[in-house]
Amino acid sequence: MTPLHFGAAYYPEQWPQQRWAEDISLMKEAGFTVVRMAEFAWSSMELAQGQFDFDWLEQAIAQLAEAGIQTVLGTPTAAPPAWLTQTHPQTLAIDESGRRVQHGNRCHYCVNSPDYHAAAKRIAGAMAERFGKNPHVIGWQIDNEFCRPCFCETCQAEFIRFLKSRYGDLETLNRRWSTAYWSQTYFNWEQMPVPWGGHNPGLMLEHRRFITNSYTRFQKAQIDAMRPHLAPEAWITHNFMGWFDGFDHYTLSQDLDIVSWDWYVGSGRNDYAFSGAMHNIAYGYKNRNFWIMETQPNNVNWSSLNNPLEPGETSALAWHAIGHGADAWLYWQWRSAYGGQEQYHGSLVDQSGQPRPFYFDAQSLARDLSAASPILAGTVPAGQAALLYSFDSRWAIQNQRHTRDFDYVDYMVACYRPFSARNIPTHILSPDTALAGYKLVVAPALNVLTESQAQSLADYALAGGHLVLTPRTGMKDDANALLPQRQPGFLREAAGAEVEEYYALLEPVQVQGEINGQCKIWGERIKVLDEAGTRILARYGAGLGWLTGQPAVTVHNYGAGKVYLVGAVLDEVAQDALFALILREAGLEPALVTPQGVEACLRVGPDGREVYILINHTSQAQTVHLAWEAHNHLTQETSKTIQLSAYGAAVLTR
Amino acid sequence: MTPLHFGAAYYPEQWPQQRWAEDISLMKEAGFTVVRMAEFAWSSMELAQGQFDFDWLEQAIAQLAEAGIQTVLGTPTAAPPAWLTQTHPQTLAIDESGRRVQHGNRCHYCVNSPDYHAAAKRIAGAMAERFGKNPHVIGWQIDNEFCRPCFCETCQAEFIRFLKSRYGDLETLNRRWSTAYWSQTYFNWEQMPVPWGGHNPGLMLEHRRFITNSYTRFQKAQIDAMRPHLAPEAWITHNFMGWFDGFDHYTLSQDLDIVSWDWYVGSGRNDYAFSGAMHNIAYGYKNRNFWIMETQPNNVNWSSLNNPLEPGETSALAWHAIGHGADAWLYWQWRSAYGGQEQYHGSLVDQSGQPRPFYFDAQSLARDLSAASPILAGTVPAGQAALLYSFDSRWAIQNQRHTRDFDYVDYMVACYRPFSARNIPTHILSPDTALAGYKLVVAPALNVLTESQAQSLADYALAGGHLVLTPRTGMKDDANALLPQRQPGFLREAAGAEVEEYYALLEPVQVQGEINGQCKIWGERIKVLDEAGTRILARYGAGLGWLTGQPAVTVHNYGAGKVYLVGAVLDEVAQDALFALILREAGLEPALVTPQGVEACLRVGPDGREVYILINHTSQAQTVHLAWEAHNHLTQETSKTIQLSAYGAAVLTR
Amino acid sequence: MTPLHFGAAYYPEQWPQQRWAEDISLMKEAGFTVVRMAEFAWSSMELAQGQFDFDWLEQAIAQLAEAGIQTVLGTPTAAPPAWLTQTHPQTLAIDESGRRVQHGNRCHYCVNSPDYHAAAKRIAGAMAERFGKNPHVIGWQIDNEFCRPCFCETCQAEFIRFLKSRYGDLETLNRRWSTAYWSQTYFNWEQMPVPWGGHNPGLMLEHRRFITNSYTRFQKAQIDAMRPHLAPEAWITHNFMGWFDGFDHYTLSQDLDIVSWDWYVGSGRNDYAFSGAMHNIAYGYKNRNFWIMETQPNNVNWSSLNNPLEPGETSALAWHAIGHGADAWLYWQWRSAYGGQEQYHGSLVDQSGQPRPFYFDAQSLARDLSAASPILAGTVPAGQAALLYSFDSRWAIQNQRHTRDFDYVDYMVACYRPFSARNIPTHILSPDTALAGYKLVVAPALNVLTESQAQSLADYALAGGHLVLTPRTGMKDDANALLPQRQPGFLREAAGAEVEEYYALLEPVQVQGEINGQCKIWGERIKVLDEAGTRILARYGAGLGWLTGQPAVTVHNYGAGKVYLVGAVLDEVAQDALFALILREAGLEPALVTPQGVEACLRVGPDGREVYILINHTSQAQTVHLAWEAHNHLTQETSKTIQLSAYGAAVLTR
Repeated sequence: MTPLHFGAAYYPEQWPQQRWAEDISLMKEAGFTVVRMAEFAWSSMELAQGQFDFDWLEQAIAQLAEAGIQTVLGTPTAAPPAWLTQTHPQTLAIDESGRRVQHGNRCHYCVNSPDYHAAAKRIAGAMAERFGKNPHVIGWQIDNEFCRPCFCETCQAEFIRFLKSRYGDLETLNRRWSTAYWSQTYFNWEQMPVPWGGHNPGLMLEHRRFITNSYTRFQKAQIDAMRPHLAPEAWITHNFMGWFDGFDHYTLSQDLDIVSWDWYVGSGRNDYAFSGAMHNIAYGYKNRNFWIMETQPNNVNWSSLNNPLEPGETSALAWHAIGHGADAWLYWQWRSAYGGQEQYHGSLVDQSGQPRPFYFDAQSLARDLSAASPILAGTVPAGQAALLYSFDSRWAIQNQRHTRDFDYVDYMVACYRPFSARNIPTHILSPDTALAGYKLVVAPALNVLTESQAQSLADYALAGGHLVLTPRTGMKDDANALLPQRQPGFLREAAGAEVEEYYALLEPVQVQGEINGQCKIWGERIKVLDEAGTRILARYGAGLGWLTGQPAVTVHNYGAGKVYLVGAVLDEVAQDALFALILREAGLEPALVTPQGVEACLRVGPDGREVYILINHTSQAQTVHLAWEAHNHLTQETSKTIQLSAYGAAVLTR
Repeated sequence: MTPLHFGAAYYPEQWPQQRWAEDISLMKEAGFTVVRMAEFAWSSMELAQGQFDFDWLEQAIAQLAEAGIQTVLGTPTAAPPAWLTQTHPQTLAIDESGRRVQHGNRCHYCVNSPDYHAAAKRIAGAMAERFGKNPHVIGWQIDNEFCRPCFCETCQAEFIRFLKSRYGDLETLNRRWSTAYWSQTYFNWEQMPVPWGGHNPGLMLEHRRFITNSYTRFQKAQIDAMRPHLAPEAWITHNFMGWFDGFDHYTLSQDLDIVSWDWYVGSGRNDYAFSGAMHNIAYGYKNRNFWIMETQPNNVNWSSLNNPLEPGETSALAWHAIGHGADAWLYWQWRSAYGGQEQYHGSLVDQSGQPRPFYFDAQSLARDLSAASPILAGTVPAGQAALLYSFDSRWAIQNQRHTRDFDYVDYMVACYRPFSARNIPTHILSPDTALAGYKLVVAPALNVLTESQAQSLADYALAGGHLVLTPRTGMKDDANALLPQRQPGFLREAAGAEVEEYYALLEPVQVQGEINGQCKIWGERIKVLDEAGTRILARYGAGLGWLTGQPAVTVHNYGAGKVYLVGAVLDEVAQDALFALILREAGLEPALVTPQGVEACLRVGPDGREVYILINHTSQAQTVHLAWEAHNHLTQETSKTIQLSAYGAAVLTR
Repeated sequence: MTPLHFGAAYYPEQWPQQRWAEDISLMKEAGFTVVRMAEFAWSSMELAQGQFDFDWLEQAIAQLAEAGIQTVLGTPTAAPPAWLTQTHPQTLAIDESGRRVQHGNRCHYCVNSPDYHAAAKRIAGAMAERFGKNPHVIGWQIDNEFCRPCFCETCQAEFIRFLKSRYGDLETLNRRWSTAYWSQTYFNWEQMPVPWGGHNPGLMLEHRRFITNSYTRFQKAQIDAMRPHLAPEAWITHNFMGWFDGFDHYTLSQDLDIVSWDWYVGSGRNDYAFSGAMHNIAYGYKNRNFWIMETQPNNVNWSSLNNPLEPGETSALAWHAIGHGADAWLYWQWRSAYGGQEQYHGSLVDQSGQPRPFYFDAQSLARDLSAASPILAGTVPAGQAALLYSFDSRWAIQNQRHTRDFDYVDYMVACYRPFSARNIPTHILSPDTALAGYKLVVAPALNVLTESQAQSLADYALAGGHLVLTPRTGMKDDANALLPQRQPGFLREAAGAEVEEYYALLEPVQVQGEINGQCKIWGERIKVLDEAGTRILARYGAGLGWLTGQPAVTVHNYGAGKVYLVGAVLDEVAQDALFALILREAGLEPALVTPQGVEACLRVGPDGREVYILINHTSQAQTVHLAWEAHNHLTQETSKTIQLSAYGAAVLTR
């Protein structure tokens, strides 16, 4: 068993068969254990409807297996062959401007087209039939980076069907969307548009859910066509894209065995709090370790400035991902094609067939992964605190930011950063997840909050949990309507306070008390409801008159626990101070104390085994002093002092 | 009689009837005298074609009346019901990109659709029939914020009809538009496009006039359907939008009894010269007091940064509006709906039904309005100077700015600012208005200037008036063609000078003489034609070589009056100095001398009664020293020294 | 014979015939020798299909001839008459958004429409028949500023035909475009889209070539219709637009007798290296002197800031153009029309019929041109160095910049600037041109480099030439596929080195050695292949780790010549130092040494006669000291010291 997989995407169909051996030999030297193949090879696998050619792929799988390299196969539905879209033009999506898209790109199909469903099931089923029990095919990826909504008439009809199933009757929909507003009332279902541009918040939110539902159905159609043919141990995944929010990833993850995602730094330098949050979110989709199905071999080609990583940096990125729950690290891609839209994308081997300078960085990483693989087998990232991440809330806020600088992701990261900086083992979860066991739960901008979610949070606090509510939390119901209560909605009693008014800020406002600093972008005026049980941690000072002297942050004793209500979007220093206070009160300790720029992650085995991963995210050498003797599985040395080279890592056990 | 109305937009159709009493009671406590209703309630009033339900509205009007609150009713044509657009899709507009718009927004109808005209007349007529003589319905608003042009085939046919009526024959049109240019010659009327993107300036200008004509006809259709049913004292208005220039507001105002407009500060802070100009323009549409039909209760939701006002500021804004001729102050809206596109917009009562902090600011303002109401009854804003505002000129310049920083509105405000800063009672008028009685008339960038308008201006000066012509004045005829004379066209003789050349400036040019400073953005090289009668107030100095030493500002003795020709767009200090000189020569005095940031407005009654309104636009307390004992109708005190709190106001008589 | 023509575009069809005499008299006073007419007069020349009216034009030609002014006639196909597009709507182009464009603009026809071809041949043929042998019509311009691609079905069919002729069969196309990538494989030709948005690089490049082919065919159709009717000495041209890259200008130039182009400074100030490169490129299209068919009389109207030139500056610009190979200088336009989209464009006479201040500047220039005309007759710009300019490379890079700041034109100018600053006589040529005779050849970002072009460059160096290869040179084949070799592709042996990796730079990297400075935007890591024959001129220092210590600039002894490989995009100072070194090694000397801002150009006659043109591009007077006694043909003075007034020029012979 290989717990830490290492490899790349490989496209043998782009190269003459006589070259494969040389490429595979270079892969082996690089330390590959796995490749992903076939996810864009539809036109090479189905030459006309029902006329399949899988021999070349079988040959490639076999040659790779001989070199000790396993295969993950992708279903190729992200890029239909021209014969299909030509004969069935309605399988091509209609974009938001109302235009049918063209052959030659990706994800350009109508996700609800019955013809496309049929074609997708045919190719996915045929692949599964041929390779489902091939011992070298360890897993399957459905499609590739789902992304594109379609605005065709089929989608409109499906959207209406979807809304019927959610609301039952139009009277309910009209009431829950307040359609008396602007005379929007729907008199029959056929009046419902697939929205482009701005629309009723209820309609906007449901349309996002409809896209989620569409991709879920499309994915499920493929899974159902494949599963009967697969070996029991073969798993199915889809490769998500970081912060992409085109659909609810929790929903799509339900039908998957494992989650994978494609992590690209893109332009600029990695911010490891920002990427750490993405890793934790990927873990949280199924509360299970995940794969990095694609990552950049030095540089991408699709940013406005496609700068490379620094030498050695790929290693820091890989260990960072593993520290947060990744079990595989695959580059996109192995070798640059001569043509195609991504000619300038990084790769391990260039179009000439020679290793790029980056190849040797990857090779060195592979050696370390191999060394640490046994000790990491079966471990998962520890979690003492949890943040709640919600697509509904994100969509609701992004659709109505109220002030251009309030960005849901920015605020999520601003809440995550104090945990990251202190090496607190943290999970990021759906608000529908059970919370028992966490010492602290933060609900950043949890704008849409249903009564049952609120109940779960209140119960958590009542039982002794520490709960942090923030600006914009608890404002909307799940039809994106304002709650008839003030914020935090159903949690007002738990918070012992409510938000009397919220303000988009033109200029910063002072905050003072146990926390001092500035409130920027957004401030909420808190009204304490339970004065006896509530401590005011900070009040607003100079700035917007409406806020002067009003509570900005409160904490309420609620049952055996505490509920914090944070009304102010704080500057970074004050935000850090606030969470330092909260962490102290919740009794949360760092996994390890490290110098700035050095991260410590903790993975724990089912046997209680603790494995610490240290990552130096800086370009300078760093020293970490431990309280205990550690064995470093990368160097096989044992010491209380760990030396990390630039971008270096260590894997430690006691 | 209530000369100063106070209230808000109210949407009872969005709430269960059992809640109305509580809301109306809160309105009464807030000091409401009026609400506007029904302008988005079509789907609640006409449930299917011809099937009306007005009972709920009658009930609301009655309940409000019991609380002493009058009603303004809006016709609901800004938002057609879905049953109408579904059965008559051609009632939906085609946008500039050629796409039919969707149900679910506002003003999304084709303004020329015969079916829409029929539907609009039906609902407007039915409302008038039911409520036209209801004693509690004091006025009517047609539609809401007309705004959207349509590009459908019906509109094209109407546009051609419109052009035929203006030009008679194609030969004339071809000649006046210089269509020999770029082979644009029209051989038959059907070749005429509804323009999208750039086109012949004549076509562009006429298309704006066509939109004006379309909305005028649409408005008139409703008025005609309603008027026979209305009580004689019931008035009809439409609510315009500040600087919006989608049509000629003077034309639309002709069929209205009074003008109203919707004033929103939006993002940032109010600049009272900028807003003062808008108020004066609204007054000038009919030379009659106007209503503020909508204004922001603290904040809007549609800007990129929806910051609130400061506490107390709504009072300064209201008195500022009243000082410039407003007789009513209505917030949009009373209470936040649970759903709909404007969930985050300010209101007096939040979605929970509780007063927001802002409510108490409004309540305090209402008390002051009530106190000052009697003394202000029947008064109108005084006017000693006039600025001329022209949609034709604005459209002509905005379509061909020649340099991105020449903005018609900016320049209008730059000419208005010296008057505002000095509390000079000023009107802003159409160039077609009679000018006798004004000591000074300014024609800022009056680009399109017909021979008759020019004659009126020349006559005004000849009879002793002081006339100021500026850059870009008198350049075009009313087909947007260059005049065969140099600027200022037909006013060359009156000006005693002409513009030899105009220059868009890359860098500033010095100006020196009686006025010193910088010419920015735009400079015109003046050639004096009547040397004996002309005084050169300033010449250009260092900067663009073409301008060096040339006259920049001249004044010409013309009959009993004077004509200034200003060739330079001056920096703010020099512009102020120039107008200080001009005001001195015209013998114009401030209404009152006030500290910076404090405005004094003068309203005059038919009996000659003078009422001064002082407004402190700053967040600091201010003191105003008067030359006479004043009675302050807000405090009932009498003194020569007026203390104004932050954002405070005073209403003074001798 | 008049070697230096001077004039303007003139539109008599826009004015009553009785005004022509006055305008022509003003032209004569201004020193005109030529006007261009009729290129937008279709609707005045063909009043309905086949119904021609040329009498007015014949009259205008005759009246001008009487004043000694010759005529260039344009075919009017840039602006079809409304009767044509109305009866044949498919002659209007479909824009990239899929919408049919409207009558009333320019170049709005479908360049492949058979109906449009027929109409174009009809009008062009009829004009040639009528005026082809008119002794006062010296030349012809086809259409005007070709620019607009069309996306209609006719164009798609033509595109497919074009691709068939280039690739023969789909198998070849699929292979050369790597269509196995993203399942793009074409199974039949009808699947091929006319691309909008991003697509396969092969498809994108071929589409640009298809547009080239379309305009070439359209132009040729007109030439073929005209040529039989023309006098032997009458020439045919088309007026190109500077850096415009909508098609390959080398290809279109083949069917033209001479090249002309329209030079507008537009917004801001002229940078004479930037414009000098454009002039040299225009010369290089046919290696023949060219016309400036349009230039700005002080200012344009289509920029965001249409500032004028400075007084006198038009003279500097004209002599600059002539120094680089222009034989004519025509303003656009003579007189402002009353209407039309370009009302604010500069002209010599304003709409009132009076000379603008600029008129006198032009008049003064005309006198100088006339004085220098005899000595310049028959001369052409000298060329000791050559830069290679390639539309294929430009398209390939602009389609995939990889970093937003790598701009092909910027980099071309950055390579040209050291030559311009030193007055080195330089040509800019197609890479398909013979290179013998040049001491130095630079291939800036010659991204697409075919084997035969590479062979030509290698042969050039082998025979003793000095060849400079730069970043991104030699990377692609002519299907826009990556070459199977590393950069510089087929020139690796000649360079004695290859590019191991290229990097888009987030921050600058130091460069040190014989050249010191910073590498910005882009750096290539050079691997020396022939260590014995290679000198490393500079290595990378601090900055991106991948580059540290690696060769940045090398020079390789190759046969009798030298090949430089420049891997770094250098800052301006370092770039200048590098080329100073290269020029020194190549033995290249300035034409003349001049103060900064003063340019010296050299034109050479067939008799070996050398004529130097000095241009003062600054607003200060300048003195140039020569090593020899020069006769200035503008002042008729002889001296070793030349005084130049602001923007002044001198035309010198020994």
